[in-house]
Amino acid sequence: MNVSIIGVGITPFGKFPHLNLENLGFAAAWEAIRDAGLTPADIQTAYSGNALASQLFGEFTIGQKILWGLGIHQIPVINVENACTSGSTAFYLACLAIESGAAEVALVLGVEKMYVPIKKVLDAGANDLETKLGFIVPGSFAMRANSYIKEYGLRPEEMALVSVKNHQHGALNPNAQYKETVTVEEVLGSPMVVSPLTRLSCCPQGDGAAAVVICRSDMAKRFGSKAVQVKASVLLSGSYDNPPHLAQWPADTRSAQKAYQQAGLGPEDLDVIELHDAFTIAEIIHYEGLGLCPPGEGGKLLKERKTWLGGSIPVNPSGGLLAKGHPVGATGVAQIVEIVQQLRGVAGARQVPKAKVGLAHCMGGDLQGDARSVTINILAV
Amino acid sequence: MNVSIIGVGITPFGKFPHLNLENLGFAAAWEAIRDAGLTPADIQTAYSGNALASQLFGEFTIGQKILWGLGIHQIPVINVENACTSGSTAFYLACLAIESGAAEVALVLGVEKMYVPIKKVLDAGANDLETKLGFIVPGSFAMRANSYIKEYGLRPEEMALVSVKNHQHGALNPNAQYKETVTVEEVLGSPMVVSPLTRLSCCPQGDGAAAVVICRSDMAKRFGSKAVQVKASVLLSGSYDNPPHLAQWPADTRSAQKAYQQAGLGPEDLDVIELHDAFTIAEIIHYEGLGLCPPGEGGKLLKERKTWLGGSIPVNPSGGLLAKGHPVGATGVAQIVEIVQQLRGVAGARQVPKAKVGLAHCMGGDLQGDARSVTINILAV
Repeated sequence: MNVSIIGVGITPFGKFPHLNLENLGFAAAWEAIRDAGLTPADIQTAYSGNALASQLFGEFTIGQKILWGLGIHQIPVINVENACTSGSTAFYLACLAIESGAAEVALVLGVEKMYVPIKKVLDAGANDLETKLGFIVPGSFAMRANSYIKEYGLRPEEMALVSVKNHQHGALNPNAQYKETVTVEEVLGSPMVVSPLTRLSCCPQGDGAAAVVICRSDMAKRFGSKAVQVKASVLLSGSYDNPPHLAQWPADTRSAQKAYQQAGLGPEDLDVIELHDAFTIAEIIHYEGLGLCPPGEGGKLLKERKTWLGGSIPVNPSGGLLAKGHPVGATGVAQIVEIVQQLRGVAGARQVPKAKVGLAHCMGGDLQGDARSVTINILAV
Repeated sequence: MNVSIIGVGITPFGKFPHLNLENLGFAAAWEAIRDAGLTPADIQTAYSGNALASQLFGEFTIGQKILWGLGIHQIPVINVENACTSGSTAFYLACLAIESGAAEVALVLGVEKMYVPIKKVLDAGANDLETKLGFIVPGSFAMRANSYIKEYGLRPEEMALVSVKNHQHGALNPNAQYKETVTVEEVLGSPMVVSPLTRLSCCPQGDGAAAVVICRSDMAKRFGSKAVQVKASVLLSGSYDNPPHLAQWPADTRSAQKAYQQAGLGPEDLDVIELHDAFTIAEIIHYEGLGLCPPGEGGKLLKERKTWLGGSIPVNPSGGLLAKGHPVGATGVAQIVEIVQQLRGVAGARQVPKAKVGLAHCMGGDLQGDARSVTINILAV
C-alpha cells in the first residue's frame, strides 16, 4: 500500500474516573500529531473508533467532539463501530482514504471509557436471545477453551502461561494497566469467571486512547526514519458456520492469508506480533490462525517460550489485552502504536531486537459465527 | 467520481413494533441487490449506517448481523455512526472504497429502529452538560428559529408552509410515515414542543431502512439505463464558532461549495433536492446554505412555491423528514434512494418531470457548533 505511519500517541491504560472520552482522545491525538511533526491544521480527515460511548454515555459523534478540542474543524470525520476492532477498522478506512486520493494526511483515533459503575459491558447485544439466556462474552470463550482442551489435550496450566507471559511483558510497559507479574498458580487460583476461565485468564475493563497519523508513503520521506510502512491492511467479516468448529477461527486464517498475500510476506518473515488475547485461550487459537504453527500446536509454541520476549517470534510484548488492558475502541490502534514503537526501536525494556516486520491482529465479536470482524495490519521498516 | 448507483431498496417508514433491525435491514438490502440484478455473493464490501442501536438495544456490529441473514460473509463490513448523517457517511465511505480500488461493488445500508418505549432519543449526548440542563435537540432548533425570525422577519405561518408542503408531498409517497396533508392552521395549532416549534414543525420518530448498491462507473454500463452517476460525495465536520450565527449554517455553505466544485455544477443545474428538514426552520436555512437563494430569502422561495412539486426546484418530493419520517440511520440513504428514483423517472405521483440532476443533503448533530457533520451527494443521469 502507498501508506505510511508517521506519528503515534497513546495514553496509559487503566481506571481514570476523573477523565472523560474527550480528555483521553485529546491526549492521544495531540501526541500523535506532535510525534509526526505536524499541527492539527495538517489533518485532512479523521477516523475515530469507539464501541461503547453510545451505550454507556448516550454519546454521538465522539470523534468530532474530541477533534474540536484540538481545533480540527471542517474536515471529513467518521465514527466507526466494529466491536473490538473499532479502532483497527478506523485505521483500515483511513488507509482507504489515502489510497483513494481523498486525503494525503489522516488521523486515526481509538478511544474508550469502560471503567464506570454500570454492569452492562460484557454482552454483545442486549437484545439477542443468547444474551438474555446468559450467554455473555466470557461464556463463548469458555466454550472455545473447553472445546480446544477436549480436541487437542491442552492442559489448564499450559493455557495459563499466556497470562503469565503477557503479565511479564506488561510489567515492562509503562502504559500497561497491570504491571505485576503473575504465576501459573495465581492464574489458576484466581476467582472463576466461566470455567475454565479464571479472572486472570480474562482481560480487564479500563479506559484509554491511542492515535496514529498516516500519510501517502511518497510524502513520508520528509519524516525520515520515523516512518513505518503499511504493507497490508485487511478487514474481513466472519462466517456463520453451522456447525461451528469452536477450536479454530477460520476468519483468522482467511484474513491472515489475504494480508500475507497483500504484503508479499509470510508468517516466517514476522519479527513481532500484537494479537487479540481477550482471553488466554484466544491467544493460542490465534497463533494457529495466523499460521505460526499447525492447528493444535499453539500450546507447544507457548511452552517452548517461542512467543515470549527473547523467543523467535515474541507475541504481545506490550502486555496484550490481558495486562496492557482492553479499552475496546482503543485496542486496535494501540496494537499498531506498539508495533510502530517496536519497529522504530524505541520500545525500551520490552524491545524486540532488530524488529523490521510486525503484525497487528484484532478480532471483534465472537458470540455468533466465527467472528463479526477481523483486522490484520502488517507494518515494516 | 468513478462511482455509479445500480440498485436501490427501501422499506416503508413508520412504527413497526414487530420488526427488528435485522428484519428492516434485510428487506432494504435484499431489494437493492435484486434491483441491481445481482446476488448477495456479488457484494464485495458493505457499509452500514446506524445511530441508535447501541444506545437503545445494546447492539454491536449490526451490519454483520443483517448481512449474515442475506448470506453475505467474509467481506469487509463497516458500521458507521455519524448522528443523522450515519447513512450518508456510510455512502461516502463506500464511494471511497470503490475509488481506492478496494472493491468494485459495494452495498450501503442505513437502518434504524426508534419506535420503542424509551424516552431518551432526543438528546445528543446524555453526558453533556447542555443535555443535563435540558438543552435537547428541539431546543437548539427553536433557538435557530427564533434567531432567524428576529433577524429576517420570517412569520410563523410562512415557516409552517414547510410542513404543509412536505406533508403534501408525503401524501404522494407510498413509503411515507405520514400520508395526511396538513394546513397552516393545523401546523400552528398542534401542541407546542419548544416555542416556536409545534409538533407538526418537528419530524417524527419511526423505524425504517434503505439501501443502495454502487459500483465503478465503467462497470455500470452493463446495468443499462438504471445506473445513476455519483457526481460528488462530500462529508465535512462543522465548526465550533464563537459566537455562533444561529440563523445560518456555514457548514452547509462550505459543503455545498465543495460538492458543486467536485461535480462541476451549480445550484442552478439542480432539478430535484432532498434535504434535512428535521424541523421546519431547518429547511429554510438549508435553502440558503445550498445557495438556492441569498440569506434571509428562504421564506420567499417557499411562499412563491418554487420548492413545491411543480415549482422550479422541488425540495423533498419524498415528504422529507417531516412526513416521510426520520429513522435516523436510514435517512441519509433514503434521500439517495429518492433521488435515484426521481432520476430514473419512476417516482410515480411525486415525479419531478425530466429530472436529470439531483442533490441529497444531510446534517448530523446541531447542539454544539454549526453541525457535527454535513454530507452532500450530487447524482446525475
